[in-house]
Amino acid sequence: MFNIGSKEELDFEIDKLGVNTLRGLGIDMIYNKKSGHPGIVLGAASIIYTLFKYHMNIDLDNLDFINRDRFILSAGHGAPLLYGIDYFLGLLDIDDLKKLRTINSKTPGHPEKDITPMVEVTTGLLGQGVANAVGISYGEKYLRESTNKTIDYYTYVLCGDGELEEGITYEALTLAGTWNLNKLIVFVDLNNNTLDGSLDLSSHEDLKKRFESINFNIIETDDSVKNINEAIINAKNSDKPSVILVKTKIGAYSSLEGNFKAHGSIPDEEEFFKIKNNLGLIPTTFEVSEEVINSFKEKVKERSNIIKEEFNKKYESLKNKELIDKLINKENTYNVLDIKGEYEEKSLREHTGDLLNKIANDFPLILSGSADLFSSCKTKIEDSNRNIYFGIREHAMGGILNGLATIGFRPFGSTFLAFSDYLRPSLRMTAMMNLGVTYIFTNDSITVGEDGPTHEPIEQLPSLELIPNLKIYRPYDVNELIGCFKDILKENKPSCLIIPRNNKEISISTSSKGVESGIYEVIKNDTDNYINLISNGEELGLVLKVSKNLKEIGIDNRVFSIPCIKNIKADIDSLWKGHLTIGITLASVEYLYKFTKNVIGINTFGLSGSKEDVLENFGFTEELLQSKILEYINK
Amino acid sequence: MFNIGSKEELDFEIDKLGVNTLRGLGIDMIYNKKSGHPGIVLGAASIIYTLFKYHMNIDLDNLDFINRDRFILSAGHGAPLLYGIDYFLGLLDIDDLKKLRTINSKTPGHPEKDITPMVEVTTGLLGQGVANAVGISYGEKYLRESTNKTIDYYTYVLCGDGELEEGITYEALTLAGTWNLNKLIVFVDLNNNTLDGSLDLSSHEDLKKRFESINFNIIETDDSVKNINEAIINAKNSDKPSVILVKTKIGAYSSLEGNFKAHGSIPDEEEFFKIKNNLGLIPTTFEVSEEVINSFKEKVKERSNIIKEEFNKKYESLKNKELIDKLINKENTYNVLDIKGEYEEKSLREHTGDLLNKIANDFPLILSGSADLFSSCKTKIEDSNRNIYFGIREHAMGGILNGLATIGFRPFGSTFLAFSDYLRPSLRMTAMMNLGVTYIFTNDSITVGEDGPTHEPIEQLPSLELIPNLKIYRPYDVNELIGCFKDILKENKPSCLIIPRNNKEISISTSSKGVESGIYEVIKNDTDNYINLISNGEELGLVLKVSKNLKEIGIDNRVFSIPCIKNIKADIDSLWKGHLTIGITLASVEYLYKFTKNVIGINTFGLSGSKEDVLENFGFTEELLQSKILEYINK
Repeated sequence: MFNIGSKEELDFEIDKLGVNTLRGLGIDMIYNKKSGHPGIVLGAASIIYTLFKYHMNIDLDNLDFINRDRFILSAGHGAPLLYGIDYFLGLLDIDDLKKLRTINSKTPGHPEKDITPMVEVTTGLLGQGVANAVGISYGEKYLRESTNKTIDYYTYVLCGDGELEEGITYEALTLAGTWNLNKLIVFVDLNNNTLDGSLDLSSHEDLKKRFESINFNIIETDDSVKNINEAIINAKNSDKPSVILVKTKIGAYSSLEGNFKAHGSIPDEEEFFKIKNNLGLIPTTFEVSEEVINSFKEKVKERSNIIKEEFNKKYESLKNKELIDKLINKENTYNVLDIKGEYEEKSLREHTGDLLNKIANDFPLILSGSADLFSSCKTKIEDSNRNIYFGIREHAMGGILNGLATIGFRPFGSTFLAFSDYLRPSLRMTAMMNLGVTYIFTNDSITVGEDGPTHEPIEQLPSLELIPNLKIYRPYDVNELIGCFKDILKENKPSCLIIPRNNKEISISTSSKGVESGIYEVIKNDTDNYINLISNGEELGLVLKVSKNLKEIGIDNRVFSIPCIKNIKADIDSLWKGHLTIGITLASVEYLYKFTKNVIGINTFGLSGSKEDVLENFGFTEELLQSKILEYINK
Repeated sequence: MFNIGSKEELDFEIDKLGVNTLRGLGIDMIYNKKSGHPGIVLGAASIIYTLFKYHMNIDLDNLDFINRDRFILSAGHGAPLLYGIDYFLGLLDIDDLKKLRTINSKTPGHPEKDITPMVEVTTGLLGQGVANAVGISYGEKYLRESTNKTIDYYTYVLCGDGELEEGITYEALTLAGTWNLNKLIVFVDLNNNTLDGSLDLSSHEDLKKRFESINFNIIETDDSVKNINEAIINAKNSDKPSVILVKTKIGAYSSLEGNFKAHGSIPDEEEFFKIKNNLGLIPTTFEVSEEVINSFKEKVKERSNIIKEEFNKKYESLKNKELIDKLINKENTYNVLDIKGEYEEKSLREHTGDLLNKIANDFPLILSGSADLFSSCKTKIEDSNRNIYFGIREHAMGGILNGLATIGFRPFGSTFLAFSDYLRPSLRMTAMMNLGVTYIFTNDSITVGEDGPTHEPIEQLPSLELIPNLKIYRPYDVNELIGCFKDILKENKPSCLIIPRNNKEISISTSSKGVESGIYEVIKNDTDNYINLISNGEELGLVLKVSKNLKEIGIDNRVFSIPCIKNIKADIDSLWKGHLTIGITLASVEYLYKFTKNVIGINTFGLSGSKEDVLENFGFTEELLQSKILEYINK
């Protein structure tokens, strides 16, 4: 689309100064704040410079432009480079740069979504950005195929060679190769160092062969603008995902050039002047040549106009604009009408699948992925291209769902609750970025039974509840499940839907509306002397039975269900009206400490055996539970 | 060592029946209990059969024999195969097999350490066993080099092709290649299926190239005993770690042969008889040919005698027996004498490194690994070969430390607390197996400052506390740190030592003895009217200052430190003597709910900024904290 001609050759002259200016600006920020990572800033500047100047298609008047190219700085500690580009493009000013790593600035220590222009995702947790990029690129391919190529952006990601040691990068990139995401271009900052020393200390991996084994187009280059530019052109021409291995020098132009110690060593005054001198820059801070900026900005603007025009042309001739319109207008919430559940004998897993299918039918932004557990979690969207087979790769699933959410999809992902630990780092990022991703975790307690302790969650439920911004839904039956879906889809926020393996019970007293308030009375009582029993999920069924038994022996009680703790706005203590309150859960007792100190739960690992045997072993039969409750009453 | 001659050829005839007998026995167990995974049992039987009959060196009189070969069934759902081998060798009886997946039996749904003979580690959580095997093999190589080859066992691991999708297998196997663990042999059950369908759905990876890229010797074979046997011989002769790719058929001999649905489909009566017939077996359950068993057992016993003799010979001529003796005698606890901390101006991270070095000097079973954060966590054992450079591979670190612990080492592993999420699945296995692994997690709160929310733990501390069996230590200063080390090393149990980034304070009122009781009074009070303040870690320093300020304005108070919650045996409520108790933590408020409902904590993600700015933002200055405490008092 953009040929290399004499004009560009002229620019390449300016670019020597340009790249060093970007390096210098990064060092200015770090030196000014005495905090940051000079190694990558000096080492990888030319990659980001070349990419943005000659390739990134963005609309400077509308950074949200839907068909913009995406760039993910997965090596988030290189943030000053991105901030420097923002400055070149007039999206940040010098004052912002001076506030690097200062509280409430636009220039935090690692890039944070929704804070800085052109930051697509929050990075810094190594490996996550790579998975996000794969998700963003998967979304592009899906849209390209659904919109007659109206959407067809490139996704670029920059990561370090050390970062590629993280398992999530292996998982995500293998999927990129499997899905043949030919508009994904991965830059590897090949500096042969990690924090603790030479890369050789921890890896003798042959990177080229690794990428060959997963169906990538492999390009090697030095770090000159000219060669990086050519590498990108080659990558764009490939019908496979590409990796560009760029040989760089960590801490280039500093006394620590090529030394792992360059990673986080803040230059002192002498060293600062030395670096500036080596870069051929004047020894002042935050001064940038107008020529560099103008040449840079002009190139980007030139493309801005062309890409908007191209997109508009294709958009106009597109027959079915629905998907694109919904994405542009950010219609990523959905009003679940009064769907009636199928009240036949079905497990809650099956009800979940049914409801997801009904909703997905009307809401095209929903995609459903599974870490090889569609068959068991029942979350496949039938007869559609909206299922993502992640394989046994929970961690990459989380990161990829995050990427999909950033471009406007409303993704779901499923696995067993015990395996949620595998994707916890990505889930934390879902929550931190406040993304509309819903995780469906089934097989949620010891009632898994025969598969034993590795498959039986104990601490997972309370431990997910601890993650800020993340709403955990734990319905007991299909009534509550409907309420959960309504609540989950009415906002575009992070959530987990926790489902038991086999529960088929339905209570006439449960309510879908109870979900909204987070906690509600399932069994009421109008006498003066009573106890409160609180629970949720499958074990609520047992509590309902025990409640009845207790009434029969003259112990009045109210039963509360808690389908969503983070929805609770009521003052909790006032709910109990001063009466003894006992919590019952198959999770750790801490799960209900917010409500009462009197919790009957499980604080050891599970056991392999029939569901009934395992429940009995842990005291969860009508008889055993009742006697434990009586102990509390008689205390 | 054991040549293939005419005797073996005769055996190979029996082996046809032998392998089918193992298949049949597995199906008997599953059919009998109507629960389990027939796919792998029918598919991978010949691998385990061949390995144990012709290669595994074990001592049937002493299963703990230190130089025994190790076998890890990472594909833990194949457990009935291992139980069948146990039966062949007289280590389990038919009654045990009949109790498959029954509570408190020796034959749980997935193999569990310390329950069944020859189960080295608990598996079932896919990928973990592969990392454990790499740890066990690393330990072998370390011992081989330290004991003049007196220790020189093989480590075998069996995993599925789907399992290789898990990132932890990539991380761990890359390390195996990097470390050139030439006595590690990985079998891949290449059945081209996962739970949700053909492997092709989720992976177009070229497995051979993948293993080439990480320095493995690659062997391909069909699943005949003869060829698997040869493959193992080839693998043993290699100077690299080996992978044996065994082409198998999931659910072989059943109606679902080669179909992904074979994975978990329990045969009905008709199908059961059909399978038995296809296997050439009589249609009864739990009947095994004597000839098969005798031939199998004889082979294993033959080797038993030779390996013991060989080991004893080498052991006798070994000069320094210390390491081996300590491993044999399981001397894996250590009495930390009254080490005096260096009371100079040093961060707690540096004190941690100093103490670890002093202790490691006297306790040779300690190994120290880091996920590329030796430089920052300060956990390197100086001038030694006892450091393990894991690279940026937290998850594999956890799994490998677990493997090392099972063979008797006392491993430590370090990273930042925020990154503990990456290794949480392995950490859960540390706890489930009750292994003596200590994780050192530094940079434990928002006081990380500039690096921002991705690097600032909030929910990690309470969420680790939730894991059963796992003790979390959170010292405030070097006094408490010494107490933590004493407590950690006096038993061989799972633990985490949580260290702040920069705290240098030391209090004259803290005590190393306080760690043992879990909670203790740092500031006492003898008036009648007072409040209790409770805290731990770095923020205790702030609480101590506020305590003083409060006293000055007439508010008497006691201050408690909680260096280890799980050590607490005291009745907690009695400690407060009925007085208002306020918890102060930089973690989520839930962290201290066990102690009081009045908790000042943080329930949002952190921020990037100077430590001081970030603390102030969250209300953790002397002034702000005092006013929050006054609010509680005035309530």
